[in-house]
Amino acid sequence: MGRPATPKLSVDKIAAAALAIVDDRGEFTMGEIARALAVRPSSLYNHLAGRTEVIEAMRARVFAEEPFARPRAPWDEVLRSLLRHYRDAFARHPRLIPMLTAHTVSSPDVMRMYDDIATVLSGAGIPVEGLLDVITVLDSFVIGSALDVAAPDEVWDKTQARTPVLVAAVEAAGQGRARADRAFELGLDLLLTALLTYGERPNLRPR
Amino acid sequence: MGRPATPKLSVDKIAAAALAIVDDRGEFTMGEIARALAVRPSSLYNHLAGRTEVIEAMRARVFAEEPFARPRAPWDEVLRSLLRHYRDAFARHPRLIPMLTAHTVSSPDVMRMYDDIATVLSGAGIPVEGLLDVITVLDSFVIGSALDVAAPDEVWDKTQARTPVLVAAVEAAGQGRARADRAFELGLDLLLTALLTYGERPNLRPR
Repeated sequence: MGRPATPKLSVDKIAAAALAIVDDRGEFTMGEIARALAVRPSSLYNHLAGRTEVIEAMRARVFAEEPFARPRAPWDEVLRSLLRHYRDAFARHPRLIPMLTAHTVSSPDVMRMYDDIATVLSGAGIPVEGLLDVITVLDSFVIGSALDVAAPDEVWDKTQARTPVLVAAVEAAGQGRARADRAFELGLDLLLTALLTYGERPNLRPR
Repeated sequence: MGRPATPKLSVDKIAAAALAIVDDRGEFTMGEIARALAVRPSSLYNHLAGRTEVIEAMRARVFAEEPFARPRAPWDEVLRSLLRHYRDAFARHPRLIPMLTAHTVSSPDVMRMYDDIATVLSGAGIPVEGLLDVITVLDSFVIGSALDVAAPDEVWDKTQARTPVLVAAVEAAGQGRARADRAFELGLDLLLTALLTYGERPNLRPR
């Protein structure tokens, strides 16, 4: 009769199992992944060297969950599309975010996105000495915005506000994904408009 | 002889214990807090109604850990100071961040900071209909920047970059807190400069 056929273990299968655990609990161990896949922990190490590689495999998987079509468009539209894709990827897995930001980005597929962003920004006139600072600003905004997508419908309890202006602002803002999307697009507008004139402002050049 | 004197339980003591657990594991339970404080779980409920109130108590505690002196200065300097204080507070507790962003802000002390930000922005000419979107943009940037403070010295593995521009950018960026601080200040510059002209740009008004 032989043993029953079991689906073959792969890096992506390990990443998927780890991701489900992190989505649920905000953490993972190699032992939990092995249990979820009904394999021995030692089997995992035939595919990955350990925890850091699992994290990089999750990073790659999250970006690849939805297809990304790079538009043929001016640089700022290309950048907007890349950043929207990036926010949506992280927004599906808010509990993974602090794990990803605490580890060096080395996944080749994700580095390709940063290659792309660096090329776009460089082509737009951002000097190489300030390029990573600009990427970090965009990165931080995108990551915070991904967490904002996961915010509750009521982000601020207006009954605790003391100023009429904050009460009115909370009432005007609306709720849910539409609220988060509108704020994200405003942030892209503000940042990209400011970047358009980056080179012209001596105080915005790297210090 | 009587019972030995034990330090009195308080909301802030419960928040401190919960924070230590979240810093360590990214999660907490009421049972874990009770064990850490060597009290019965039921004792906690004499001070707090449950999990949500513990999260709000942690939010308040984190903002109060360091004193904040509001400068007497133009609105953009006041806003920068507030946002720096806010980033530093969150940066000390990166694993708390997704927990805070997933819950409605109701802590009166933290709402006072948002009252302050709303008042400053309103005074600077941001209309009330767009005010919460602007606050959300600043919030998202600050939260992402707080996670960036906790990033490893090597944020990007340049051996995985394919473009010379990304390699050169990573090499130019430096490392550690100085790198994170420089990017944060650049982001404040970009966002506040763009906000200064917010009213003049029809495409940046709320849609």
